[in-house]
Amino acid sequence: MSYELHYWPMIQGRGEFVRLALEEAGVDYIDVVRQDDDAGGIDPMLDRLSDPKNPRPPFAPPFLRDGDLVIGQSAAILLHLGPRLGLAGTTERDRIWTHQLQLTIADAVDEVHDTHHPLGVDLYYTDQRPEALRRAAGFRKTRLPKFLGYFERVLAANGGTGLVGADLTYADLSLFQLVDGLHYAFPKATAVALQSAPQVERLHAAVAQRPRIAAYLSSERRIPFNEDGIFRRYPELDG
Amino acid sequence: MSYELHYWPMIQGRGEFVRLALEEAGVDYIDVVRQDDDAGGIDPMLDRLSDPKNPRPPFAPPFLRDGDLVIGQSAAILLHLGPRLGLAGTTERDRIWTHQLQLTIADAVDEVHDTHHPLGVDLYYTDQRPEALRRAAGFRKTRLPKFLGYFERVLAANGGTGLVGADLTYADLSLFQLVDGLHYAFPKATAVALQSAPQVERLHAAVAQRPRIAAYLSSERRIPFNEDGIFRRYPELDG
Repeated sequence: MSYELHYWPMIQGRGEFVRLALEEAGVDYIDVVRQDDDAGGIDPMLDRLSDPKNPRPPFAPPFLRDGDLVIGQSAAILLHLGPRLGLAGTTERDRIWTHQLQLTIADAVDEVHDTHHPLGVDLYYTDQRPEALRRAAGFRKTRLPKFLGYFERVLAANGGTGLVGADLTYADLSLFQLVDGLHYAFPKATAVALQSAPQVERLHAAVAQRPRIAAYLSSERRIPFNEDGIFRRYPELDG
Repeated sequence: MSYELHYWPMIQGRGEFVRLALEEAGVDYIDVVRQDDDAGGIDPMLDRLSDPKNPRPPFAPPFLRDGDLVIGQSAAILLHLGPRLGLAGTTERDRIWTHQLQLTIADAVDEVHDTHHPLGVDLYYTDQRPEALRRAAGFRKTRLPKFLGYFERVLAANGGTGLVGADLTYADLSLFQLVDGLHYAFPKATAVALQSAPQVERLHAAVAQRPRIAAYLSSERRIPFNEDGIFRRYPELDG
């Protein structure tokens, strides 16, 4: 049976971390909401999200269906998929370390989101633009170098190839996605910050060249970055 | 060997979710940074955080030492501790569901934090008070009822005793902590929101009365809520 991913159809968003793992593993999966059938579209997804027959409902998209198991929260989905797809190392210690990295990447992603929505998701960007300018300045100056510096240090301590060691994990794929999004949203600030994180930049390039990832990125399955997602190109926020 | 918790000594913060699990389980642990010895204090903690001999360093406190294993990220710490402390249900499905809940509670905690720091952690509250007023208004109106409504629905679907079922898990302890903090930070808005979430309120009361938790809460080990932590009582943010 195929894995089913359920997520907003117009953005990469937090669903993209799951998509990258499924694509790298080369397993069958259905991006349900993007299908052109009765299951496709947003309203059926929201109906499934609040399915009264599911006593363990997700809080929000993305969620994954694996047989009769439904899992929400992108990090929890990857926790489930990691060992099944061979993307979480080999030992229990590797698995918890991979997960710890994923949670730190998720924290960085949250902070990227808050650069354009510092006052919350109930207001448009244009209604919080002055505040976004202030928040983005702090992100560029302090937080971006801090996160990239951390991952640089981890890569250096683990041989440079991957965050967990020589074998690719979902944390490596997620770091690729973080850096890819940063290049899109903050091209100037990211170029500067990566000068001090050359191994992070190498990992980003190496993941992009993996055959299945390269095929995915050039396919229609990869939704382009856009200004409805987490990583948005508002030039004024790039300093 | 005792578990070692390493966290800022003056706040409950994200370390509190780990403390509650260790206290409920009744296991030996050392709150290292609060010790009055050479290992105590913040500077030694920061030295351990950036220990060059650890190729798998945490990004930030809290971190847990279990023998020679060091784990950062509170949710990852609980993922590790859950089965060991008997606080993650009995099956793999229970464990992933407990973790999914923890991640949603962590999201809610992040949003509480952002009510007083919408422009980022590099500025004081007093430097972002007008923005905090706007962010807090949205939190009270939309996000607080949404989160509590979700947990109410989960409790109702699982028999009302706990989020995973009849057996207590770390997610139940964490929901207790979220509600306890909300009562402190937003006493008026929380009282109103809990009128529509009676099972959440019952869970909060039931956890507080568990013998080990009650003993902990009345001990000096429980750091009082204060205005350096995540849950801060700024009356102007409570509407």
